[in-house]
Amino acid sequence: MPMVQITMLEGRSTEQKRKVAQRITDAIVEEAGARREAVVVAFHEVSKESYASGGVLMVDKVK
Amino acid sequence: MPMVQITMLEGRSTEQKRKVAQRITDAIVEEAGARREAVVVAFHEVSKESYASGGVLMVDKVK
Amino acid sequence: MPMVQITMLEGRSTEQKRKVAQRITDAIVEEAGARREAVVVAFHEVSKESYASGGVLMVDKVK
Amino acid sequence: MPMVQITMLEGRSTEQKRKVAQRITDAIVEEAGARREAVVVAFHEVSKESYASGGVLMVDKVK
Amino acid sequence: MPMVQITMLEGRSTEQKRKVAQRITDAIVEEAGARREAVVVAFHEVSKESYASGGVLMVDKVK
Amino acid sequence: MPMVQITMLEGRSTEQKRKVAQRITDAIVEEAGARREAVVVAFHEVSKESYASGGVLMVDKVK
Repeated sequence: MPMVQITMLEGRSTEQKRKVAQRITDAIVEEAGARREAVVVAFHEVSKESYASGGVLMVDKVK
Repeated sequence: MPMVQITMLEGRSTEQKRKVAQRITDAIVEEAGARREAVVVAFHEVSKESYASGGVLMVDKVK
Repeated sequence: MPMVQITMLEGRSTEQKRKVAQRITDAIVEEAGARREAVVVAFHEVSKESYASGGVLMVDKVK
Repeated sequence: MPMVQITMLEGRSTEQKRKVAQRITDAIVEEAGARREAVVVAFHEVSKESYASGGVLMVDKVK
Repeated sequence: MPMVQITMLEGRSTEQKRKVAQRITDAIVEEAGARREAVVVAFHEVSKESYASGGVLMVDKVK
Repeated sequence: MPMVQITMLEGRSTEQKRKVAQRITDAIVEEAGARREAVVVAFHEVSKESYASGGVLMVDKVK
C-alpha cells in the first residue's frame, strides 16, 4: 500500500491535483507492481511564508 | 520520543481527535514501552480535493 | 484512508509493532469512523545516532 | 520545490524506482507547472514487519 | 537535496519562520556539506486541536 | 513540541548529525520560542538509489 505525500506551494487547481494524482498512481502501478486501490496520494499545501529553498522563504524571493 | 503523524480527511471533531490521540498514545506506551510524555501525535487534515486513493480524488468518488 | 506514520527508535519487536498497529487502527476505526481496510500504518525506525530530543542525540544521553 | 515522499514495502529494484521517480517528476512538471530541477522524490522503504493495513502487519497477511 | 519538514503549532510569524528556515539551512550547509540551493524547508502548522503530547491535545492543556 | 524530520542521503557521520540536531534545536528555541526539551529531530537517511532530483536518481547523476 504505497503512500505518497506531496508537499508543495498552495495554489494548484483541483484539476491539476486530479491529473497529478492519476499519473502518479499509474506510474506506481505500472512500474512498481502495486495494486491500484492500494495507492494513496495526499497533497500537503503550504503558503509562501511556510516554504523555503536555499534558506530563503518563497515570499522573499524576487522572481 | 515516538512521533506519530496522521494524514486524514478533514472533518473530524475535536472530540474525535482527542480520543484518537489518547488511544494511540496509550497503545505506544503500553505496547512499545515509550514514556507517555514523549509521545507526540499530529493530525494533518487534507481536503477531498487533496486526497486520492486508486488514482481518484476523494471529491470525485461516487459513494 | 488515514495514513499513520510513526517515527521511533529502532529495537521494537515484531510483536510490539503488531500490537501497536492493531490498536492504532482500532482507535481510528472506532473513534474517527474510518473503514478498517483503509487505515495504513508505517513504522519508520531510526537509530540512536539519528534521533535527538532537546538538541541531544539519543546516543549521547546519559540515562 | 515540490517534495514527494513515498513510503512503500522494500524490495523494488533500482530500475523500478528510476522509472517511478522519472514519471512522478514528469507528472508534476507537466500538470502542475513545477520546474523540473525543483522536484525531489524520496523512497522510504519499510519491511513487512513495519507496515500494516487494516490493522494487520504485511508479514501476517495470508495471500 | 535535504528536505526538512517541521510540524509545529500554528501562530509563528513570518519573521520567525524566516529566521528558522535560514538558520536550519545554514546548519545543514555548514555541518553536513549540502549545497545551499538544495536545502528545502517546509513548515506544517497544525492547530491546538490537532496536536497532542502525552496523549493530551494542546487545547486541553492547563498551562 | 516541534517535530523536525530531515530526509537526506545516507553517509553523514554521527558528529555531523550531532551538530545539525543541536543547531536546528537552537534555532527553533531561540527564534520560535519553543521549549528546548520539546524539540525532536529525526534523520531519515536514504540511499542514492532511493533519492531523485529533477527526475534522476542520485546514483545516475554524473558529477
